[in-house]
Amino acid sequence: MQIIKYPARSEWPQLLQRPVFAQDEIEPRVQVILDAVKTQGDEALRTFAKKFDGIDLTSLEISQDVIAQAAHQLDSNLKEAIGKAYQNIRKFHESQKQPVEKIETTPGVTCWRKSVGIEKVGIYIPGGSAPLFSTVLMLAVPAALAGCEEIILCTPSDHPAILYTASLTGVTRIFRVGGAQAIAAMAYGTETIPKVYKIFGPGNQYVTNAKLLVAKEGVAIDMPAGPSEVAVWADESAVPAFIAADLLSQAEHGADSQVVLVTTSEQVVSEVMDALQEQLKQLPRQELAEKAIENSKVFLVEKEQDALDIINAYAPEHLILSISNAENIAEKIRNAGSVFIGNYTPESCGDYASGTNHTLPTNGYAKAYSGVSLDSFVKKITFQQITLDGLRELGPTVEAMAEAETLIAHKNAVSIRINTLNS
Amino acid sequence: MQIIKYPARSEWPQLLQRPVFAQDEIEPRVQVILDAVKTQGDEALRTFAKKFDGIDLTSLEISQDVIAQAAHQLDSNLKEAIGKAYQNIRKFHESQKQPVEKIETTPGVTCWRKSVGIEKVGIYIPGGSAPLFSTVLMLAVPAALAGCEEIILCTPSDHPAILYTASLTGVTRIFRVGGAQAIAAMAYGTETIPKVYKIFGPGNQYVTNAKLLVAKEGVAIDMPAGPSEVAVWADESAVPAFIAADLLSQAEHGADSQVVLVTTSEQVVSEVMDALQEQLKQLPRQELAEKAIENSKVFLVEKEQDALDIINAYAPEHLILSISNAENIAEKIRNAGSVFIGNYTPESCGDYASGTNHTLPTNGYAKAYSGVSLDSFVKKITFQQITLDGLRELGPTVEAMAEAETLIAHKNAVSIRINTLNS
Repeated sequence: MQIIKYPARSEWPQLLQRPVFAQDEIEPRVQVILDAVKTQGDEALRTFAKKFDGIDLTSLEISQDVIAQAAHQLDSNLKEAIGKAYQNIRKFHESQKQPVEKIETTPGVTCWRKSVGIEKVGIYIPGGSAPLFSTVLMLAVPAALAGCEEIILCTPSDHPAILYTASLTGVTRIFRVGGAQAIAAMAYGTETIPKVYKIFGPGNQYVTNAKLLVAKEGVAIDMPAGPSEVAVWADESAVPAFIAADLLSQAEHGADSQVVLVTTSEQVVSEVMDALQEQLKQLPRQELAEKAIENSKVFLVEKEQDALDIINAYAPEHLILSISNAENIAEKIRNAGSVFIGNYTPESCGDYASGTNHTLPTNGYAKAYSGVSLDSFVKKITFQQITLDGLRELGPTVEAMAEAETLIAHKNAVSIRINTLNS
Repeated sequence: MQIIKYPARSEWPQLLQRPVFAQDEIEPRVQVILDAVKTQGDEALRTFAKKFDGIDLTSLEISQDVIAQAAHQLDSNLKEAIGKAYQNIRKFHESQKQPVEKIETTPGVTCWRKSVGIEKVGIYIPGGSAPLFSTVLMLAVPAALAGCEEIILCTPSDHPAILYTASLTGVTRIFRVGGAQAIAAMAYGTETIPKVYKIFGPGNQYVTNAKLLVAKEGVAIDMPAGPSEVAVWADESAVPAFIAADLLSQAEHGADSQVVLVTTSEQVVSEVMDALQEQLKQLPRQELAEKAIENSKVFLVEKEQDALDIINAYAPEHLILSISNAENIAEKIRNAGSVFIGNYTPESCGDYASGTNHTLPTNGYAKAYSGVSLDSFVKKITFQQITLDGLRELGPTVEAMAEAETLIAHKNAVSIRINTLNS
């Protein structure tokens, strides 16, 4: 890791910069894929599957029989673990339900909001070396709780853990389609794959770019995405081996993973570095993790306030507070996706099973975006009901404002009612 | 209006289609503006003000003196109206605050969410014929309630009603910049205008396109936007003159406004059409409204269920229910931005002063998007804290799942803690 000692505040923006991925290069290629799926539907999906993945897709949809089989292919220990994680994630997201609360803002004028599940949502789960069934949990559990009627899943993988988790959580249909073409299929619809109103899920740069392009056309997406990140703030109360393990659990995601350690203690730096070297040797993904660690940064700062400020300026996706006053500091965190408090709260608990969602804002987006939650799967519709007396009370206010905005028909809609009442 | 009698369901998608505005044409022009502001800052803003608006901007910022003067330029009746609307909007949005609720998902595993205001937000208010001070209320009131520290406003207008409302609601700085260049300034920052994390507000096609382009670069925006819309569902219990007034209050927004009437009664159609012609003659914006009305549609359908289904398929920004069982039907509305219940609840009350927000999803986006609310100005950060016992309980679940996803360092972050505890 690059150890940066006592950087001046003026240097922070430069030091905290994330790598920039030029979209200009891949965007035209992604656009070609989107256009092909839009105009040729299923046919385009089959062509791309053959071209990019070397697969002859006879059927785009994974049958309910195959999905039902998946349960028998998993060992019972893993099924039990998925079941426990499912319960926790369900419990936490269920607590996010908001009851309808009617507010009388003026006598006779009642306003309220009601959460209604988005009817059709799509989940993308990438293929690759790891079957990300945990992400199926994180997206399908709140979708089902929200009352989404159609929850479809596109994935190039047919790993039984993905299929099992999808059926456990209420995914309605699964399609074996990957890449930017899967995003296009869900955004526009094809003969086989239904068009959805909102698309969720991680993916490579092509998938991410496709999501941004369809969002520009009005299809909602969960959030823009970049490589995963963790920042750890540690002091002498931290256990160096724990910190090293947390840093490595982020680093193993890929060479572009962002790993940051912030501390006021030089001793913590050297002890964590030692533990890191030792643990790194034993990792199966050592090479990947090593590259990420090489690009990673340690910030040694003077005061607690500096540590707090640098973290809020960085706005990490994950933040681990391994400091003695972690609970107090947690109150002062302004920009982060998810915060892990204390020595016995590793990020991996939130990644899998504690109950919180692991789909979180990367790349500094935590300054403006929340992670995925039940909110992400509902629209909140506002309602209002005004009585005769309420309109008499509120009407003159509306009339004065509409007139000042020179919108006379807006004023009339009130006046004609009040005049009828008065006549 | 085009009266469409008993359309077959298969024809609905075609009939409900909104006009499509080709972005391909304006996007390159908007991109040039964005790039210029990104690279040349204030200088570009001055050049565009001269070129597009014929204005020599000596100062980009409107001084606090000028803002303070605005209060003296408004008549007291309008100030009072703005004050009442302010109170109602504040009351309704304040009720949207969510207290922190700690959830123990597993013994010793506690998770919660906390809403934190987005530090820096930007509001755009267009110029043009009407000074949209009501939109300042709708955006600045929740921003201030959310605890946003910097609330900047860009507008080409210096109308005192806008300046007064901005100072009343807690806008921190006002810049006299309009168009796509204002969006660029807030997205990238210039020497004078601070960069913000999220941009809100309406605008023409250039402004809208600029928002979509900066969103692709990671700056959050309120939502994509199209022309304003209303759908009215009326039966014999409705007063035709009221319905006509509501349709016209939408139509006067512009020739591209979307106005829809849905009814099961042929009598309602003819009576509303008569009332419409009569009221149209008296409008100052008659020509504009006439064009919008020409492009608008009446759907005469057979059954209540048809009316409900066609409305949910259209997903209108505003929906007025002037039907005898409006309260029951309101429960069945799935896709709409804001719903107005009963004969004495005209849309214009929600546009100005009842308390609900008037920044709502148009163009069918109500299928996936909510209108602006307090939620739009906060991020919800998740927190978790796990005890020793909690980790012993949850740990094996995390270990099993991490191993199945071949993420061994994720597993280690748990194992190393449990092993230390056990040793």
